[in-house]
Amino acid sequence: MSDANVDPRKLGRPPPPPERQTPFLELDADRLERNLLAMQRRADGARVCLRPHIKTHKSLRIARRQIALGASGVTASKPSEAQVFVEGGIASVTLAYPVVRSAAIDYLLEVGRARGADLNFIAADWAGVAALAEAGLRHGLRLSVFLKVDVGLGRVGVKPDAEDAVHLAAALSDGRDLSMAGLLAHAGHAYGASDISAIREIATKEAADLTRLKARLEAAGIAVPCVSVGSTPTCLGAPIPPGVDEIRPGNYAFLDRTAMRLGLCEPDDLTLSVVATVVARNSRYAIIDAGSKALSSDQGPHGTSLSGFGAVVIAERAPEAAWQIEKMSEEHGFVPCALGELPVGSRLRIFPNHSCATVACFDSYGPEDADPSSRIDARGCFA
Amino acid sequence: MSDANVDPRKLGRPPPPPERQTPFLELDADRLERNLLAMQRRADGARVCLRPHIKTHKSLRIARRQIALGASGVTASKPSEAQVFVEGGIASVTLAYPVVRSAAIDYLLEVGRARGADLNFIAADWAGVAALAEAGLRHGLRLSVFLKVDVGLGRVGVKPDAEDAVHLAAALSDGRDLSMAGLLAHAGHAYGASDISAIREIATKEAADLTRLKARLEAAGIAVPCVSVGSTPTCLGAPIPPGVDEIRPGNYAFLDRTAMRLGLCEPDDLTLSVVATVVARNSRYAIIDAGSKALSSDQGPHGTSLSGFGAVVIAERAPEAAWQIEKMSEEHGFVPCALGELPVGSRLRIFPNHSCATVACFDSYGPEDADPSSRIDARGCFA
Repeated sequence: MSDANVDPRKLGRPPPPPERQTPFLELDADRLERNLLAMQRRADGARVCLRPHIKTHKSLRIARRQIALGASGVTASKPSEAQVFVEGGIASVTLAYPVVRSAAIDYLLEVGRARGADLNFIAADWAGVAALAEAGLRHGLRLSVFLKVDVGLGRVGVKPDAEDAVHLAAALSDGRDLSMAGLLAHAGHAYGASDISAIREIATKEAADLTRLKARLEAAGIAVPCVSVGSTPTCLGAPIPPGVDEIRPGNYAFLDRTAMRLGLCEPDDLTLSVVATVVARNSRYAIIDAGSKALSSDQGPHGTSLSGFGAVVIAERAPEAAWQIEKMSEEHGFVPCALGELPVGSRLRIFPNHSCATVACFDSYGPEDADPSSRIDARGCFA
Repeated sequence: MSDANVDPRKLGRPPPPPERQTPFLELDADRLERNLLAMQRRADGARVCLRPHIKTHKSLRIARRQIALGASGVTASKPSEAQVFVEGGIASVTLAYPVVRSAAIDYLLEVGRARGADLNFIAADWAGVAALAEAGLRHGLRLSVFLKVDVGLGRVGVKPDAEDAVHLAAALSDGRDLSMAGLLAHAGHAYGASDISAIREIATKEAADLTRLKARLEAAGIAVPCVSVGSTPTCLGAPIPPGVDEIRPGNYAFLDRTAMRLGLCEPDDLTLSVVATVVARNSRYAIIDAGSKALSSDQGPHGTSLSGFGAVVIAERAPEAAWQIEKMSEEHGFVPCALGELPVGSRLRIFPNHSCATVACFDSYGPEDADPSSRIDARGCFA
């Protein structure tokens, strides 16, 4: 099964270090720098803040580079993940995840205070408002909180036209326990779009939803200091709409086959790959030493799916063909190919469907596990 | 969406520690002990050795318990995984993974020698024989090697009736660089069986394939000291057939929804669960704080699939209903349920489809990450 979506010649990279045991992750430093810079320029051009989501790379080194290029801070998924970045010296972190038990952020608030970091939270309902107010009270802090708005993913957030949105925003603006940071949305449903024009519609509707809600809040006397949106599809695939103050894409740093499917990038923008070895051959498959434990079984973000589990090319020379991983065991990938293709011992490069999920399997980007700067610092930070 | 496959009352466990941040893994110590003991008794009853595959638990503590109950050693997937168990004091380890570059086992052989451990390898083709012979020569060791036989999974191994099987076995028996450990197979295709009778057919055919090949080798003057098989479905779902000397199941320690689907166990045999919290609600879903990064997106082993991504019950009291995770984002699970069910803040217990894949996401079984004995010692050992 060849991978018809990929121009194999554009996936070429220098041969990987021959002595390294496979499978391992590789980052293309030039592509990474280009991707980081391109998004910063998009943000600068639209005069919005870029606050990248670090769930993609989970790396202090890369977060520091994003800040050095102009990012205003970072976005994190879980309290323990946010904490790694605060402890690593990032001065401003938004925890874009609902907090429903005040104890969940006790340690993050302590670390934030010790480091003098600026922290922002989100609330999507009354349980969230109560938990954050309680945490703030206990720590003697007035927490900065975005109202989370559901613009169509159907996951977390108040609907933009819901009556409750005004009451929740008022509670965040009481000036005592909490302060209103603004409105925050994530149009993750853009990953399910069929093409760029559908992504543009989603981005436009998201901005319209938030602008309308902002006007409603302002009419009720509630200031909305910031409108924050962000997903790589809407930030790369559509102009940044008027009314937006901040963007929070994450995947743009590495990109992947899903981003290619959506028309967001070219094969030579793909920053992350996994180097693997063919360890067996049979009449149907080359069997490689990377399976679901290393690559993840994600076929795309948010349950979207793409055929196969990654695009495969020869790693040692300029690729002239591309294949797909059709299925996986825990430590094996099955690559359908003709006998004679991909013999045992060949080293292959795999470009995953969903780079965020693949990175989350590994402890380090290498090449040397011993180099602290290549650690995946927030790996396993689920809590 | 309720989970019709599960009797929720049989999934009850004591409430999890309220102070612990979710999501986290929990092992039911009683169920674990029962599962370990039951398999050891099956092996003892059939007078075969049990050499459990540690890829399921990746834990030294559990491997040591398996040994204490009578296991003859352990089985591992990758050299770096095997090394963790040798360094942890397990005296006999079979690396049931094809080695095609001799350097891949250099460090394992050094550690094995230092620890006086008994190591076994597999070879499935001439590249494997050459790599192992070269490694043995370089380290001044005669390596013990099983001939890997493909009994139907279509992954790694020589076909049982292939002409080459005799030549490969002869090369392993030359008495100089390598020694013939026996025949080794993995009937992983049993996970795709529709019911127990199909599993029995697979187990019977596997034993017949290996017995036939053994006779052919013996007729050619090649001794076959051990016939080793192993998958949890064939070891739990079928009698251990005559002619088998060793079994290598792994998943039986924890089991999961896949084992239930196959009729291999009851809900109250499920040892591994993930405790999560409802962090948001909307009209369709309870949104929980465990997604694809914590649970994995595996729907079953070897690319088999089961609806959803885990069975869900209330954790704090005796469960009376069960639901399913329908889809996931990286840090969110979507559990379809009626409004009023599963309110924000509820703690839930998830029984995964594929426990091996879920364990591989976490660094520790907890409850305290600081307790070294609850570490997932071989996490991330892909190379």
